[in-house]
Amino acid sequence: MREYPKPIQNLVNLFTYLPGVGPKTALRYVFYLLKQPKGTIESMARALTELQLAVTSCTVCKTYTTQDMCEICRDSKRDRTVICAVAHPRDIGTIESAGFRGRYHVLGGTLSPIEGITPDTLEINSLLKRLTDEPAVSEVVLAFNPDIEGEATIMYISKLLKERHLKASRLARGLPAGSDLEFADEVTLGDALNRRWEV
Amino acid sequence: MREYPKPIQNLVNLFTYLPGVGPKTALRYVFYLLKQPKGTIESMARALTELQLAVTSCTVCKTYTTQDMCEICRDSKRDRTVICAVAHPRDIGTIESAGFRGRYHVLGGTLSPIEGITPDTLEINSLLKRLTDEPAVSEVVLAFNPDIEGEATIMYISKLLKERHLKASRLARGLPAGSDLEFADEVTLGDALNRRWEV
Repeated sequence: MREYPKPIQNLVNLFTYLPGVGPKTALRYVFYLLKQPKGTIESMARALTELQLAVTSCTVCKTYTTQDMCEICRDSKRDRTVICAVAHPRDIGTIESAGFRGRYHVLGGTLSPIEGITPDTLEINSLLKRLTDEPAVSEVVLAFNPDIEGEATIMYISKLLKERHLKASRLARGLPAGSDLEFADEVTLGDALNRRWEV
Repeated sequence: MREYPKPIQNLVNLFTYLPGVGPKTALRYVFYLLKQPKGTIESMARALTELQLAVTSCTVCKTYTTQDMCEICRDSKRDRTVICAVAHPRDIGTIESAGFRGRYHVLGGTLSPIEGITPDTLEINSLLKRLTDEPAVSEVVLAFNPDIEGEATIMYISKLLKERHLKASRLARGLPAGSDLEFADEVTLGDALNRRWEV
């Protein structure tokens, strides 16, 4: 593909880092931006800077937040007896939309020794510490994608929880195997939440 | 969909302005960026700022450039007798890759009265002025998408060129009708360039 002026090529190259974006799509984005009022590009640059400056991890559940603790951890109306462990911050939105009203713990991924994701690289220790600090919690819902890594993570954590005489549960096997939690419809996910079972 | 912390939601909203990007894809982009080393977000913010500051229109052919005149207009090895009129700057890359080595003129779109794109809103006057200023030019290739708007633009401009006793040509009808020039393969486009005809 032809090389464009440097400021255009730079942004095209950076856009291709985004998931699912190739050089043609990246070019389309940049040309689209160039046709917008100058304010649009400025807003996007500012939003990126702010994203990087303002967003940190919740000290309790490790999701993204702009404060010390995230909104859900600060919400006194939440069920304090149940924690839903998820792989990624984006999963919280999905579980919330299915009607769950407990609190969360974000592991940062699921076990995958091939990719170098071992228990130490995930927020499993902080989850165990949290369970010691919060004796009100009686159940942990292990809500991972129903794939090999997710199943391995469920097995690994449920064993640790049983040793501590805590209830571990998993989403009902209502989700099609190999699919992605992010794209499950709310009804199926709601069923899977309601019919979660102990492991 | 659940509302995320403001800096995240802001960028999600801005990303949904990009062509073909909905809220889920935008969210995916933002969460992806949050997982990258901080330098990535910073580079993107800087690239956007630079894009907006550094990129202007070529004074001659109206394509995007960082200088007064674009690289192609400054290239002394180009065939000075032929100008290829295109709708968008991105079309230049496509025509270049098919082997054209003349110069260009970017109209900024094709005629579409319904969308308010009339001859006055396009760079047609600047093209005519350029043809007066550069008597060496003997032919204008009208390289627009073979759709209704493109055909109308070819008809409109070819009439103006004939009045000025200049040769107007169009890409050979080798392109499938209704398709998009951007996605044509180089061989088909090369044929269409070689077999362009006078109108």
